[in-house]
Amino acid sequence: MPYRSPVTDIRFILDHVVLLAPIAATDRFGESTGDLAEAILTEAAKLCDTALAPVQRAGDLTPARLENGVVRTSPGYAEAYAAIRDGGWVSVSAPAEHGGMDLPQTLNMAIHDMMSGACLSLQLLPLMTQGQIEALDHHASDALKALYLPKLVSGEWAGTMNLTEAQAGSDVGALRTRAEPNGDGTYAITGQKIFISWGDNDFTGNVCHLVLARLPGAVAGTKGISLFLVPKFLPDADGQPGAANAVKVVSLEHKMGLHGSPTCVMAYEGATGWLVGQEHRGMAAMFTMMNNARLGVAMQGIGVAEAACQAATEYAAERQQFGPIIGHADVRRMLGEMRADTFAARSIALACAQAIDMGTATGEADWAARAAFLTPIAKAFGTATGIRVAETAMQVHGGMGFIEETGVAQFYRDVRVTAIYEGTNGIQAMDLVGRKLADGGEAAFRLLEEIEAGAEAARGDQPDLAGAVWAAAETLREATEWMVGREGADRNAGATAYLEAFARVLGAHYHLKAAMAEGGTGPRAALARFYIGRRLPLYAAHLAAARDGAEAVLALTPEALSS
Amino acid sequence: MPYRSPVTDIRFILDHVVLLAPIAATDRFGESTGDLAEAILTEAAKLCDTALAPVQRAGDLTPARLENGVVRTSPGYAEAYAAIRDGGWVSVSAPAEHGGMDLPQTLNMAIHDMMSGACLSLQLLPLMTQGQIEALDHHASDALKALYLPKLVSGEWAGTMNLTEAQAGSDVGALRTRAEPNGDGTYAITGQKIFISWGDNDFTGNVCHLVLARLPGAVAGTKGISLFLVPKFLPDADGQPGAANAVKVVSLEHKMGLHGSPTCVMAYEGATGWLVGQEHRGMAAMFTMMNNARLGVAMQGIGVAEAACQAATEYAAERQQFGPIIGHADVRRMLGEMRADTFAARSIALACAQAIDMGTATGEADWAARAAFLTPIAKAFGTATGIRVAETAMQVHGGMGFIEETGVAQFYRDVRVTAIYEGTNGIQAMDLVGRKLADGGEAAFRLLEEIEAGAEAARGDQPDLAGAVWAAAETLREATEWMVGREGADRNAGATAYLEAFARVLGAHYHLKAAMAEGGTGPRAALARFYIGRRLPLYAAHLAAARDGAEAVLALTPEALSS
Repeated sequence: MPYRSPVTDIRFILDHVVLLAPIAATDRFGESTGDLAEAILTEAAKLCDTALAPVQRAGDLTPARLENGVVRTSPGYAEAYAAIRDGGWVSVSAPAEHGGMDLPQTLNMAIHDMMSGACLSLQLLPLMTQGQIEALDHHASDALKALYLPKLVSGEWAGTMNLTEAQAGSDVGALRTRAEPNGDGTYAITGQKIFISWGDNDFTGNVCHLVLARLPGAVAGTKGISLFLVPKFLPDADGQPGAANAVKVVSLEHKMGLHGSPTCVMAYEGATGWLVGQEHRGMAAMFTMMNNARLGVAMQGIGVAEAACQAATEYAAERQQFGPIIGHADVRRMLGEMRADTFAARSIALACAQAIDMGTATGEADWAARAAFLTPIAKAFGTATGIRVAETAMQVHGGMGFIEETGVAQFYRDVRVTAIYEGTNGIQAMDLVGRKLADGGEAAFRLLEEIEAGAEAARGDQPDLAGAVWAAAETLREATEWMVGREGADRNAGATAYLEAFARVLGAHYHLKAAMAEGGTGPRAALARFYIGRRLPLYAAHLAAARDGAEAVLALTPEALSS
Repeated sequence: MPYRSPVTDIRFILDHVVLLAPIAATDRFGESTGDLAEAILTEAAKLCDTALAPVQRAGDLTPARLENGVVRTSPGYAEAYAAIRDGGWVSVSAPAEHGGMDLPQTLNMAIHDMMSGACLSLQLLPLMTQGQIEALDHHASDALKALYLPKLVSGEWAGTMNLTEAQAGSDVGALRTRAEPNGDGTYAITGQKIFISWGDNDFTGNVCHLVLARLPGAVAGTKGISLFLVPKFLPDADGQPGAANAVKVVSLEHKMGLHGSPTCVMAYEGATGWLVGQEHRGMAAMFTMMNNARLGVAMQGIGVAEAACQAATEYAAERQQFGPIIGHADVRRMLGEMRADTFAARSIALACAQAIDMGTATGEADWAARAAFLTPIAKAFGTATGIRVAETAMQVHGGMGFIEETGVAQFYRDVRVTAIYEGTNGIQAMDLVGRKLADGGEAAFRLLEEIEAGAEAARGDQPDLAGAVWAAAETLREATEWMVGREGADRNAGATAYLEAFARVLGAHYHLKAAMAEGGTGPRAALARFYIGRRLPLYAAHLAAARDGAEAVLALTPEALSS
């Protein structure tokens, strides 16, 4: 059976677990009712199931390639992208004044979930364009906005982000690309960027690059970086693609997966660019783009997890070995882990999106802080879940899973990169225990209060489940208090484990809400019971590791690591 | 830096953790002293580092292929295999009367560890041949032994095992391949087998297939299966390869990894075969082959883990992002997890090999029971460790890890199958809680006593570490008592988690022994401290899941699994 977009699951979450209603109650997003959500998600599902999913295998089998300096995309990608563009799907959360629908990120991210499950490598392109729209909307001059935003929002043009250089990955501040003023308000950009997702394509009218570079005399590190908009074709007097800019694709990377997405090495050779935002403040502008992109990458992991769940459950129902293998407890256990973790990751990511929207709509700092706190958790847990679920899906398939034609191997290969790009999951964890707990952990404690209140409300109907969630929240609270007091290596040594524990407990909270919404019986309650009994206990192991401190980690000398 | 066989680590384990000395103290293996181990491991390391490791990438880049019905192996494989053959490395544990070295499996498996790290896809071939040697030695007629064993032991001919058919994977009893008596003592074998590793090659003089098939009138299921030896070329009067047999390679599978190993669909079309063992007792004979093959697959996981550890540690020392990334706590944490788990998995696997050898040498049932108990743990934990370590190695490499040229992607792709073949890890777990606890868990409790004694002995010098191991052993003892009383789905629903917990605790036991051997300070102690503080705590989460029972698992209806 082909991929089916999980509209029902997303609707259930938005109706009962992470609510859309408070968003629709704001002036800003007043039209985003349940009815609208139903309509737009159903329409997006059609796109995903009928236009995107059918090209997913072709992207893997016939990777994008470079021909005489031009990227040729995979078979069917141009048509599939046209369906995205013509449906207006790039514009879901874009500003209305530039042609966007101005809908909540919650709906936009739900659509990214579905698009990722249908065709991960193609979903990445509108995700990048949306990030660029947001960065330009917040930081670009009115002239640049007027020229570029309508075409980006409509999907006629595409956007990319150019940060990484060979020596500058996680350490963005080490980048060397230069920007020299041309004297006419434009700049000449010179340097080489690597790992540029969708650095070129053969189906949009233009490709607009946001490029981080250094102005003459800029200080070293991230404080000397500025952001430039560098189009593939310079707009002519009518705003149409004109002369070719001095930017070219040097080569495409040969990757383990995500073959449909051309990952480019880009050479800028005095290319004409326009400053976006203030000089030397490029990182701040780039972060606008990056935060939502991080949540978009969370949706990638979740979307692939969904597709892998569907494939494995279907295979397990059909494959006969001592009866259908879905009847065997250990196979059912695997499917349960996949589905329960996918639900947890999806709920966490949608909670992050909800906080973004509530922050946008209300201007309240608490919502913004929650969004900031949940972003690294959603990204790291969503992508780790995608990887683990794809791995388990392969296991359910047995030997067939290792054969490429079966298709689950592609999930396994494709999704692996999501834990790496847009800030590795380790970087996410640093961000969580560093910046996001820096205020004493207010957002964390507010979430813990919500988890505790949820457990309290469920205690009467679901005493066992509620008790387990409550106990986990208490232990997590203690660990959070401990973590808030830590610095440097001590904090960082426990960062990943702390993030994993927080996600585990949050996931239990949302499962419990789902069970309660269903009255404590039925499939949601069964899944909650499974998660809380078998997946939640991992939090304690993670917290033990999180609080173990840096000493044992730093004692691992090269000799210990090679012994 | 290229792969370097871990002779030092293996020697340390054999000298201090899982001892070779008791094996060398037996009459059977009296010559297997530390000096001999040093000599043979050093010699094997030369083979691995200089002859096998150099062809590892070529196997991935230029997969084995089928040309006009003939398998053409990857570039350099014929020469690399010749080095294995000429060095006598197929013969390490083979019987002396057929030209073997008759050395302990402990040394043979240590060599498989090193060969797997050097070139997994090629190591699989001698592993299969060794399994065939063992099966023939135990079950074949003297005439067959005299004809085949010398050539298999010398490596002149190769062996394969043919169980799987499209409808018969884990459920071997569902196989349909037929064997009809020819009236001259031979049989005509007809049927199709899939997933046959190294089903053919272009560098051994013959390829000998052990094939499971049904005789006329055989009962359904595993009790109606017989084992046949079916050579590619029928030996002539001089025992040399003569006329081609009616067996052919129909196609090669297109796999996610392990490209150097041709995975064949084999068609037997009235091929001439000889019965091995008794009629209808083929499964028993095949199990002889399979048990050691399972331990060999454990070594595959461990070998790839070793290679991935080396690659990641080296990359982390060289890659500069805010200084060498090995200086960052979270990167060091990843490297620590990789190395600490690899040590645990290697120690467990060598403990299994030690038990096999002691069982062989002493004939004591306790040793045989320990070997039987440890085999599924070694296989499942060794391969899961290989997968997890390869995944973490890719994470340490960041974006570079996702690029095929870097090489860690190959580890990730290759090692994935080890959790699937030779009995999926789920099947291993069923075997553990089913057959291996069926006697009331004697082998488990004896191991627990050993763990407790180790903790007791360490309590004075390492009170914290010893206390943690002791507490874990107590909880595991309770869980084992619980598990021994369980049946059916209740037992199977917890099987995988129970296996994981047992491995975690055993790993801590061996780490503690290593720390004590070093006097409690130094690199081994640092690694033990890290493992016990940060990796051991997972056992409690696994045991919580193991004891959660079947109800929550079986409550996961198709509706719950797709919600």
